[in-house]
Parts: sequence; structure tokens; C-alpha cells
Amino acid sequence: MSEIKKIDEISMGDDNASFYKGRRVLITGGLGFIGSNLAARLVALGADVLLVDSLTPDSGGNLFNIDGIRHAVQVNVSDVRDASSMQYLVRDQQVMFNLAGQVSHVDSMRDPYTDLEINCRSQLSILEACRHHNPSVKVVFAGTRQIYGKPDVLPVTEEHLVRPIDVNGINKAAGEYYHLVYNNVFGVRSCALRLTNVYGPRQLLKHNRQGFIGWFIRLAVEDREIQLFGDGSQLRDFVYVDDVVNAFLLAGASDACNGEVFNVGGSGPVSLAELAKLLVEVAGTGRVRFADWPAERRAIDIGDFYADSSKFKRAVGWTGAVTLRDGLDRTVRYYRDHLSEYVETPLDTPPETP
Amino acid sequence: MSEIKKIDEISMGDDNASFYKGRRVLITGGLGFIGSNLAARLVALGADVLLVDSLTPDSGGNLFNIDGIRHAVQVNVSDVRDASSMQYLVRDQQVMFNLAGQVSHVDSMRDPYTDLEINCRSQLSILEACRHHNPSVKVVFAGTRQIYGKPDVLPVTEEHLVRPIDVNGINKAAGEYYHLVYNNVFGVRSCALRLTNVYGPRQLLKHNRQGFIGWFIRLAVEDREIQLFGDGSQLRDFVYVDDVVNAFLLAGASDACNGEVFNVGGSGPVSLAELAKLLVEVAGTGRVRFADWPAERRAIDIGDFYADSSKFKRAVGWTGAVTLRDGLDRTVRYYRDHLSEYVETPLDTPPETP
Repeated sequence: MSEIKKIDEISMGDDNASFYKGRRVLITGGLGFIGSNLAARLVALGADVLLVDSLTPDSGGNLFNIDGIRHAVQVNVSDVRDASSMQYLVRDQQVMFNLAGQVSHVDSMRDPYTDLEINCRSQLSILEACRHHNPSVKVVFAGTRQIYGKPDVLPVTEEHLVRPIDVNGINKAAGEYYHLVYNNVFGVRSCALRLTNVYGPRQLLKHNRQGFIGWFIRLAVEDREIQLFGDGSQLRDFVYVDDVVNAFLLAGASDACNGEVFNVGGSGPVSLAELAKLLVEVAGTGRVRFADWPAERRAIDIGDFYADSSKFKRAVGWTGAVTLRDGLDRTVRYYRDHLSEYVETPLDTPPETP
Repeated sequence: MSEIKKIDEISMGDDNASFYKGRRVLITGGLGFIGSNLAARLVALGADVLLVDSLTPDSGGNLFNIDGIRHAVQVNVSDVRDASSMQYLVRDQQVMFNLAGQVSHVDSMRDPYTDLEINCRSQLSILEACRHHNPSVKVVFAGTRQIYGKPDVLPVTEEHLVRPIDVNGINKAAGEYYHLVYNNVFGVRSCALRLTNVYGPRQLLKHNRQGFIGWFIRLAVEDREIQLFGDGSQLRDFVYVDDVVNAFLLAGASDACNGEVFNVGGSGPVSLAELAKLLVEVAGTGRVRFADWPAERRAIDIGDFYADSSKFKRAVGWTGAVTLRDGLDRTVRYYRDHLSEYVETPLDTPPETP
């Protein structure tokens, strides 16, 4: 109750807590990490929620993610690459949270075409579907800080050059640009949130190719060793998934965001060593080990990265509310209760190389 | 003798021994405007030249473009979208000038998928072919100033944000980024030249969807009316194709360019009204008419644009050598001699709306 009230106060003022009430909302990637957390919140706000997800193996889609809201949402299993299905599904939707994507950087370098199909071509076909069949929909796209590459200055603002360091980053940048062009040229109201390191319940833990933080959490929960390269002093910022859900809700309700991109990051820089130590402390399990940099990892390391989210704060009043300690605590508790829904590997299997 | 010095001597008119002499060079889009001019120069320098072009209707490919060098080059008609042909064709090449592209902004908004296939997916498959079959090739990509969109500051340097205003600009940006990533990650040496408004002999004149300057030249040569919106005060910079050919040659011979992007523009801003008046004066035919801005054109106008090319000058010593008057004069003479090879429409047909 308090959490829902808080977002409504932020976004719409105390009295009118109902932007999403009865509203038809589509979430692509709706069974994934952020999508499912967003769905739960939208259900609580009284929205009419349609989740589209391909449930592709190795992606974050997981039916357990909507365990508590399964009968309160519609689920349509389909792939955003399936343009004709998307043409149908976007019709009559009022808000679309466009979160479906291929998020593994490693995979994008092994198979750049699949990444292109999902992160470029499908974004075009989703937007074409909106342009031709539902031009009044409001779209919020899940972008990524990856498109900035290795930063020139910190914290990174939206004025920083887009300089992706892998195919995934390039295709995500193109996907974001399409949204802005369809906003500006065709009037399909769209904006993009460039997310930094998001963590929390319902994140994929099966493998380590979708970012390190879920993997670190799994290692801690399984009482295994978290390996850090060098002295673990690289800085990052971390944002709890509920805060990201708030960000999407605010962006979806605000026409001030149309045609704009916004960083959505944590409240400040934290070193990987600090993160890992705090995680182990909160979990009461796991341990940290420092290892030498492998040359091939050193070569692709982007150094420190943390974002300046003040543009988004100015636009819609968003600010992160959940501290890193509190967020890690909630996350660890969630996985302690539900680990078997997220991990196929038995506990005693050697970990994949992070 | 340094490599830069050697090239300076060659490209700036010295007949000394050549970096390109006997070198195997592939040009994608080799029957197009810039590609064919580059081919002629490479033949003169003694290179072993392979031209790949799809001769797609409406694109710039034109066999007449290589009329004088037809027996000195190899021509392979194939589309860069044909990944298996490209896999074969890149083998054993030492330098690739990667110029094939869909260049119509209008077409990209009507059919974004074709633009994506040519400007994104084909770039990936060309680079994958290099990565797997010829990793030692040096690649120079033809980028475009279009990726900057409407500039924040003038002149525009490479530090300006990439902010495309249409699908073509997005896909060209992605194509450029792929080259940089394949350079940085896979060691396929690549760089990109962001060209501004290039003009000269062998440019497409059939229609006006590939930029205004070729169209203006056609109108002048055909003694028709050049229509300018408003007072024609929008600034642009113009670069003659021989100077652009020099730019490609220098970039292809210099490893200092690897992983970098460079603006390649004209020597300074010129208003459209100045350009059109100079063109009419040089041609002795045509006339200029000022018209009110149509609302839909006003909406997509990017205002003034001109580039700062000093980064490229610092890297390889490039500078434009041909004045606008001289370049227009050479261009008009060329089309007076060969207009029927470039124009299918009889002289008395009403012009398409520019």
C-alpha cells in the first residue's frame, strides 16, 4: 500500500492516484526480470495488463516470475521477431513498456545476427505496428548504459557520446534511436530509459551472460566464492528493481518524456569490492576472492561507470528510494525462498567462469 | 619514409611509388558515385581493383561510371545483402572501401526494413566475412554527416552527439559502430569517414531522393528552375568527389585511422542560395526561385550544418583542394557531355517535386 501510494504521489499527486487504473498496458519481455516486477505493480494499480514474452531458453522469461499475479494478467507467448503477431498485439494498447531484448553481450559477439534481429529489426517492426495500427500508444523503451561504452567523464550524463563496445550495445543504441525517430516523425510517443545495473527479485540466475550482479547474488546465496579481478575497485552504480519499476511508471504517464532519453541509475558509485562484501555480509553466506586480471578481460574492461540521473529527476521527479543494503537484503531473501525456480544446476556443480 | 608522407605524395599529385601499386582493393558500391571515382584513381595508381555492386534500380550504380576503366578493373555484380557471395569476395583483398549503402532518407522511412538489411545487417555480414576469412584486410567505411541530425553547435566535430533524425541515419550509425567494434574487438582494422555533401561527376541524377546537390546540378544543366525554400540561407558544406577520393586513399593507407571516425567536409559554410547562384553562373543555364517553406519540409529541416574536418587533417594531412567554383565547373562539363547516361527522363518532362 505505502509503496503504491508513494509512486502515485510522485507521479500524479495525492488525489489522483489512478493514471494506470483500468488502462490497457502491454509489456514486451513481460515474463522477464523487470517486466514481471512492473506487471505486479501495474496489477496492484488496477491496470489491464498484457504480457508478451517468447520464453526463449537462456533469456530471462520465467513463468514463476508472475506466480502471484498469474490470474490477474494476460500472457501471450510470442517473440517480438514475429512481426505479424506484434501487429495484432499492439492494437488498442494505451501504454507499451518495451522491454524485450537480447541482453547478453557475449552472445551478441558469437551470433551478431540474432542480436540484430531482436534488438534492431524487432524494434522497427514493433514501432511500425504502432505507426500503422495504434499511433496513439505511449511507448517506454528499456535502453541501457552499455551504449556509452568506456566513459570519458564521470558521472555519465545523457550528453556523453554513444560509443558502444560490442554488437549488443550497437543494436540497443539503434533500437533506442528508432523510438526517438518514430516519436519525432510519426508521432508515436516514445522515450527511452538507459538503465545501469539493475538488481532484485526475479532476475535470471541460470547463467552469467546477462551481467554480473545476478550472478554474484546467486554465488552468495549458494555460499560460493565471488571472484573479483584486481582489487575490485571498479566503480558501478546499482539500482533496485522497484525503483526501476517506478521509473517506467513515471515515464509511461508523462508526455514530458516524449522523444527524450534518460539515465536511470543508482544513487552513487560503489566499488565491486564494496558491493561483494556488503552482499556477503547481508546474506551471511558466500565469500570474496581477489584474482589477477585475465588479459582478455582486462582488454574489454570499461573501468569505472556510474550515471547521472538528474535529467530524469528534473523531468518527472524520480529518485531511487531503496538503499543498496536494503535491496540486497530483499533480493537474497527472495532467492532463498525460491532458488529452485531460478537455478537448474545443483548446488554442488562447479560454477561457470564468471 | 613514413607511410603518411608516402601517401601525401601520391594523393596530392606526386607520381612516386605508390602504397596502392599492385595492391588488391575491393570497393563495395564500386559502380556508384564515389566508388567509381575512387576506382579510376586506384587504377591510375596501379592497384588491382575489384568492384562489387548490385546495380539495384534507383541506386547510384551505373556501368557508364567506369566507362574509361572497364577493362582495367574486375566487376562482380552482387548485393552486399548476399552474405555468402561477400564471404567469398572479401578473401585475399588487402584494402576494402566499403561504400555500398541505401542512401535515400525518404525510402528509409517508407521501407525501413530494406534500409536495415542494407545498412545494418549487410555491414555485419561483411565484417563477419572479414573476421572469419580475411582478418588482415583494412576497411574504410563511408559514413555520413546525417547521423548527427540537427547540430547543437557549429562547426560539427566528431565530439557532437550522434542523434539521427531518420531510419537511414540510425542504420548508417549502426553500420559505422560495427566497424569500430570489429576493429577494437576482432582486430579487423577499420575506420569511418563521415562525409558531408559530396558532389561531382558520376553522381546519380535520376531522382532527387539521394540528396539535393546532384538534383540541383541536373536542374541547372537542363536549364530548369532550382527551387529554394525560404531565403535559401541554410548553410552547408560541399566537398568535391576527387577530394573525397583522396580522403579514402589516405585513410586506407594509414593505420593511425584504425578505430576512429573522421568528418570529411568542405572548406567552409556556403548558403544554399550562394550555391545555387554560383551553379547557375558557372553553368550559364538554370535559374533560382525562392518559395515558401512547405510545413512538412520545415518540420524536418535541420537548419545549418557544416563540419569541422580538422581531426582528419591532423591524422593524415588531408585537406580539400578543389574550390566550389572549380568543382561545379568540372561537374557541369561532365554532365553536359554525358547527360543521357544519367537521366532517363526527356528534357521536357516536368520535374519531380524536389
